Amino acid sequence: MEATAFSSPLLEWYNIADPASPELDQLADRYHLHPLHIEDCRNRDQRAKIEEGQGYLFTVLKPVRIDAEGDFESIDLDIFLGPNFLITVLETDCPELRDLVERVRKSLTPESQPQRVYYRLVDELVDSYLPLLDRLNESIDELEDQALESPTPELLSRIFSTKRTLIFLRGILVNTRDFASQLQRMELPGLSRDLAPYFRDVYDHVARNLDTVEIMRDLLAGTLDVYLSSVANRTNQVMKVLTILGTVALPAVVVSGIYGMNVKGLPGAESEHSLAIVFAVMVVTTAALLWLLKRFRWL
Amino acid sequence: MEATAFSSPLLEWYNIADPASPELDQLADRYHLHPLHIEDCRNRDQRAKIEEGQGYLFTVLKPVRIDAEGDFESIDLDIFLGPNFLITVLETDCPELRDLVERVRKSLTPESQPQRVYYRLVDELVDSYLPLLDRLNESIDELEDQALESPTPELLSRIFSTKRTLIFLRGILVNTRDFASQLQRMELPGLSRDLAPYFRDVYDHVARNLDTVEIMRDLLAGTLDVYLSSVANRTNQVMKVLTILGTVALPAVVVSGIYGMNVKGLPGAESEHSLAIVFAVMVVTTAALLWLLKRFRWL
Amino acid sequence: MEATAFSSPLLEWYNIADPASPELDQLADRYHLHPLHIEDCRNRDQRAKIEEGQGYLFTVLKPVRIDAEGDFESIDLDIFLGPNFLITVLETDCPELRDLVERVRKSLTPESQPQRVYYRLVDELVDSYLPLLDRLNESIDELEDQALESPTPELLSRIFSTKRTLIFLRGILVNTRDFASQLQRMELPGLSRDLAPYFRDVYDHVARNLDTVEIMRDLLAGTLDVYLSSVANRTNQVMKVLTILGTVALPAVVVSGIYGMNVKGLPGAESEHSLAIVFAVMVVTTAALLWLLKRFRWL
Amino acid sequence: MEATAFSSPLLEWYNIADPASPELDQLADRYHLHPLHIEDCRNRDQRAKIEEGQGYLFTVLKPVRIDAEGDFESIDLDIFLGPNFLITVLETDCPELRDLVERVRKSLTPESQPQRVYYRLVDELVDSYLPLLDRLNESIDELEDQALESPTPELLSRIFSTKRTLIFLRGILVNTRDFASQLQRMELPGLSRDLAPYFRDVYDHVARNLDTVEIMRDLLAGTLDVYLSSVANRTNQVMKVLTILGTVALPAVVVSGIYGMNVKGLPGAESEHSLAIVFAVMVVTTAALLWLLKRFRWL
Amino acid sequence: MEATAFSSPLLEWYNIADPASPELDQLADRYHLHPLHIEDCRNRDQRAKIEEGQGYLFTVLKPVRIDAEGDFESIDLDIFLGPNFLITVLETDCPELRDLVERVRKSLTPESQPQRVYYRLVDELVDSYLPLLDRLNESIDELEDQALESPTPELLSRIFSTKRTLIFLRGILVNTRDFASQLQRMELPGLSRDLAPYFRDVYDHVARNLDTVEIMRDLLAGTLDVYLSSVANRTNQVMKVLTILGTVALPAVVVSGIYGMNVKGLPGAESEHSLAIVFAVMVVTTAALLWLLKRFRWL
Repeated sequence: MEATAFSSPLLEWYNIADPASPELDQLADRYHLHPLHIEDCRNRDQRAKIEEGQGYLFTVLKPVRIDAEGDFESIDLDIFLGPNFLITVLETDCPELRDLVERVRKSLTPESQPQRVYYRLVDELVDSYLPLLDRLNESIDELEDQALESPTPELLSRIFSTKRTLIFLRGILVNTRDFASQLQRMELPGLSRDLAPYFRDVYDHVARNLDTVEIMRDLLAGTLDVYLSSVANRTNQVMKVLTILGTVALPAVVVSGIYGMNVKGLPGAESEHSLAIVFAVMVVTTAALLWLLKRFRWL
Repeated sequence: MEATAFSSPLLEWYNIADPASPELDQLADRYHLHPLHIEDCRNRDQRAKIEEGQGYLFTVLKPVRIDAEGDFESIDLDIFLGPNFLITVLETDCPELRDLVERVRKSLTPESQPQRVYYRLVDELVDSYLPLLDRLNESIDELEDQALESPTPELLSRIFSTKRTLIFLRGILVNTRDFASQLQRMELPGLSRDLAPYFRDVYDHVARNLDTVEIMRDLLAGTLDVYLSSVANRTNQVMKVLTILGTVALPAVVVSGIYGMNVKGLPGAESEHSLAIVFAVMVVTTAALLWLLKRFRWL
Repeated sequence: MEATAFSSPLLEWYNIADPASPELDQLADRYHLHPLHIEDCRNRDQRAKIEEGQGYLFTVLKPVRIDAEGDFESIDLDIFLGPNFLITVLETDCPELRDLVERVRKSLTPESQPQRVYYRLVDELVDSYLPLLDRLNESIDELEDQALESPTPELLSRIFSTKRTLIFLRGILVNTRDFASQLQRMELPGLSRDLAPYFRDVYDHVARNLDTVEIMRDLLAGTLDVYLSSVANRTNQVMKVLTILGTVALPAVVVSGIYGMNVKGLPGAESEHSLAIVFAVMVVTTAALLWLLKRFRWL
Repeated sequence: MEATAFSSPLLEWYNIADPASPELDQLADRYHLHPLHIEDCRNRDQRAKIEEGQGYLFTVLKPVRIDAEGDFESIDLDIFLGPNFLITVLETDCPELRDLVERVRKSLTPESQPQRVYYRLVDELVDSYLPLLDRLNESIDELEDQALESPTPELLSRIFSTKRTLIFLRGILVNTRDFASQLQRMELPGLSRDLAPYFRDVYDHVARNLDTVEIMRDLLAGTLDVYLSSVANRTNQVMKVLTILGTVALPAVVVSGIYGMNVKGLPGAESEHSLAIVFAVMVVTTAALLWLLKRFRWL
Repeated sequence: MEATAFSSPLLEWYNIADPASPELDQLADRYHLHPLHIEDCRNRDQRAKIEEGQGYLFTVLKPVRIDAEGDFESIDLDIFLGPNFLITVLETDCPELRDLVERVRKSLTPESQPQRVYYRLVDELVDSYLPLLDRLNESIDELEDQALESPTPELLSRIFSTKRTLIFLRGILVNTRDFASQLQRMELPGLSRDLAPYFRDVYDHVARNLDTVEIMRDLLAGTLDVYLSSVANRTNQVMKVLTILGTVALPAVVVSGIYGMNVKGLPGAESEHSLAIVFAVMVVTTAALLWLLKRFRWL
């Protein structure tokens, strides 16, 4: 069969890169896979989960990747684990997923048991979240700095898009944690107990990833607060500049307006020093106004 | 009986399009349906639920539709499932619901068991949420873009109305999930075990729908944040424009005010180049002010 | 005894309109009611609850009413349910509560069992929340419309007062739901099993009411967001008007200021068309400024 | 022993006003109290809790008081309850706590059993929260009114300080509720079952207090919203006043500026009615501007 | 062996300051430590946890420190507890951690049992959070005062950084509480029951620390609200100052503009008292405007 990825007396591993392929139907027949599970393989966007079938475990995992446009994308990886067979179904034949499967395949020996391979696949998957989490973490640090420095609408858009990624990632990790928690309690003929610490370790890693995402959500919410406060601060500062401009202009405008009137008896208008007097009045009034604003902390 | 939708040795299916109809009372008599359940059929706006009656299961489901005005509306669909009978009661005789029932009815064969039909109805119902969810998802994407582009009051009103829809939808899905969870644990004489994977599948679909709604709620909350930040940003920008206008005007107004005074000794006023001098003062002061604002990042 | 509301071989019902009355003490003696329960009857503002006494169930219910000033008010209704007696204690002798008791009393027959009457009382109580919920729902719709139309301080005060009512109502309904949940599991000699569906129905109604309140809380929170966004929008718009006024005035003020100066050589000042020239300069500058603001989307 | 507060064949009650006193060590020796419990008595700021020791129950309660500066303060009250002894340790010898202990001591009779005294102490403590809650409730009402009327920074500071008190109080009540819940399930040789309704009553009172605190937290959060909306409203109104002032001034300034220019041919400048004409232009333009603003709801 | 920290017939304690050291591998061999646990020791940033190995308990603890730049940092401390051995692995050889281990080592006697030493380590660790919590608490008090006094962008940055620390600390404490809760229920050959009260005490301390962190999070959220309200208040005040300046200037500018016009018939312009009249008009109009603003509470 074309899909055979590995074959040994202990294990037949079929890797199916196209869920629509008729090979999947043949395997379903041979190993009595439940029609609903085959349907799940062929419909995208399942939740990460583990279900008991008759004589096998059916698992949906959710690898994630960043596509060419920098957008977050999640893929379905379906695994059937039987006492002596393993079937992996890749929803999309993307390089990241193919690499992951390849890494596991290369590490196999004729003694590899199906459940051991299963553990390796799950472990690789869980670790594959880490680079993405690191990248998000750096991105949030940067967003925070920029929110303080220059709160532009572009930044807002980036905060929102990071939030969107975190929301989706959290959804996937919550389901993966539930999967890992169930995995620890699963009983299957042929699923020996000595993998228990390994499955607990998987749970531990997923839980740590989820902790990280929750912390990043909190931090990102803080970034938005910083953004809003930053904008409010800047508006406040612009207002102050405007008010200071107004304060500086006011006496000059009022005094020059008065001395520009066509009325008689403007004090000092006929004097030789009229200009100096008028300037003195302007400067003193402006200074007094500014001192008042400062004094009563109005600004 | 007029309401008979399907009849076979294994199954009598009655479909009642008007809950007030006396046929419902006749069926209640024949199958010993509990008066409270009949009352539930006749009062609208029940919660999605499943209850054990004497020898039957009573289920309330909540199909949803978008009415002509684009408003979200939920309907009641009541199902009585017995060992050899099935009664469906449609609260409103709307086309969507009638189609759903019709689709199930057409797929029946003489071998169809009541519980199988029941599963088909529930499955169709759960899938009927998907188009609505897709539509909401697109709508939220669009709202977010517009919140950044042009935060108008109309947009605010649309955000709020989408929020309203999500709140109602979430309420319905939470109850439907509880129903699906109970359904998996229900024991009924004649409810065979081999439907268990199907009911788990129903639960899975409802849970996925609910995940989607929660994610959309999060995204919509983000849209409102974007809206508010956008308005704050714009106010900030308008303030800046106003301040720049003030800065540009200030020297011109003050200087021309001063040279408009009826006082003696205005420097250069008698000179041939007075105008050029005055203009130079204006331009230099304006430039200096703008440079200051820029330099100390006051703007 | 004066307080006797109904008497039959199966049931003695005492209805006490004044908790301070010595009749309550007599009944406490006769039926061995626990002193703490009597104390609860005499102290207002208990939580809705159900407690087992020796040979009876003690229940506190919380009817609600809207008083003359439109304010929300909750009352205590205490019920002792024994195998052959029922004691109702009304904290306040208000018309709504008296009507409720009266409606139940009128429906009794000599065959009415205490627990049946108890169910009727609880059922009437739970239904009595519905008109209040409907009224609140309408009120929130109206608040939302006004928040968009005219966000005045009075509206803010009304939003807050509605919020207050919802908070209190929610507190009461949460406790009532807990009561209804316990009621389903209660075992009492003489509390026959055939009321179980009815008590489940009560639970269902309370849960639906609570769903409604939670949804209304969400909607009201949205109304406040709309209010705040509306105010921010309006401030933004007022700012724009101010800036446009400034833009229109600026050239006129600057140009007229310049031509008002007592300096020589103002271009065209001596010309016959000086005014037309000056006006042309003003109009062209204003138009250019407005076009610039529009062009760079600064407004 | 100096610390003996009450002595009878059934009960030895020691009340220790200074946790550092060596009497506590003597009692620890005599009754085999666990060193960790003695340590808890001597370190302040424990959580409210109940723990089983060997042959006794150790309880930490948290009375609260308002100190001279109006600040909220919590104290530790430690109780050891044995089959025939009771030890109370007061962290601080404050009047409120001394009164509480004294009230209980005065109500004792030679028949008083330790657990009865214990109940009385717990009951008094739980009731001692009520005056504080009432005071906070009034305070929140007042804050809300002022937030609408005059949102000053002082008010903000008071809202925050009330929030702080509620946060601390909530922390204490949550722990006290857990204590009361455990108390109902505790089994101790010599702890007879007939106190069960009393302990349930204690739980009920704590739960009611906690409900009240949660409601007050919700209301206070609303008060802050009102505060912020109030400030936003006022800023909006100040902006409108400024814009109206600008609108009124604009035509006068522009027109008088134009007629102040040293150019020829100002229309009507030479006429006898020049002033009237100019005034008419000013008034008409102002009125037209105000009408426009009103008409297009720009203000 | 170099790593031996303490040796007695009852206990071999190995303290490994560098997780990469080959001594760890030797110990893993000797005591059959699980490879996953050794891997956990060598990878940083594990979660606080406790796991059962074959014949030993594996614990990860998370001491925290403030580094030279005042930044919060968490370290890993791994402990293997066996019936007669104890292995501590320090992720980083920092002074605080070395002191902690040293303090415990010095308190040992030849009678010290492994589990007793284990308890001492855990207890010291939990207490080591207290100084950090106190420092954060003071810092929040200070931030709140400054938010009211002078809401600068630097303060915003400090609020956010404190929030970040609280978020991380909370994550660690939640996991530590789960660890302490599991610790109480752990069963290990050789783990005697008389340590139970001590482990309960550890749980109690962690829970109290977590309460404190939750309260601080609430308080810090309040500080941000105060900050935002403070900025809004200040903007409002700056607006008022600007409006008052405008109000004061308006009559002077309008009146002087009018009297500056080159038109005939300005009232009083030819009079001897023209200046006094004009001034009187200015002052009266200004006063009237200010009175109006005050009267209708527009300011």
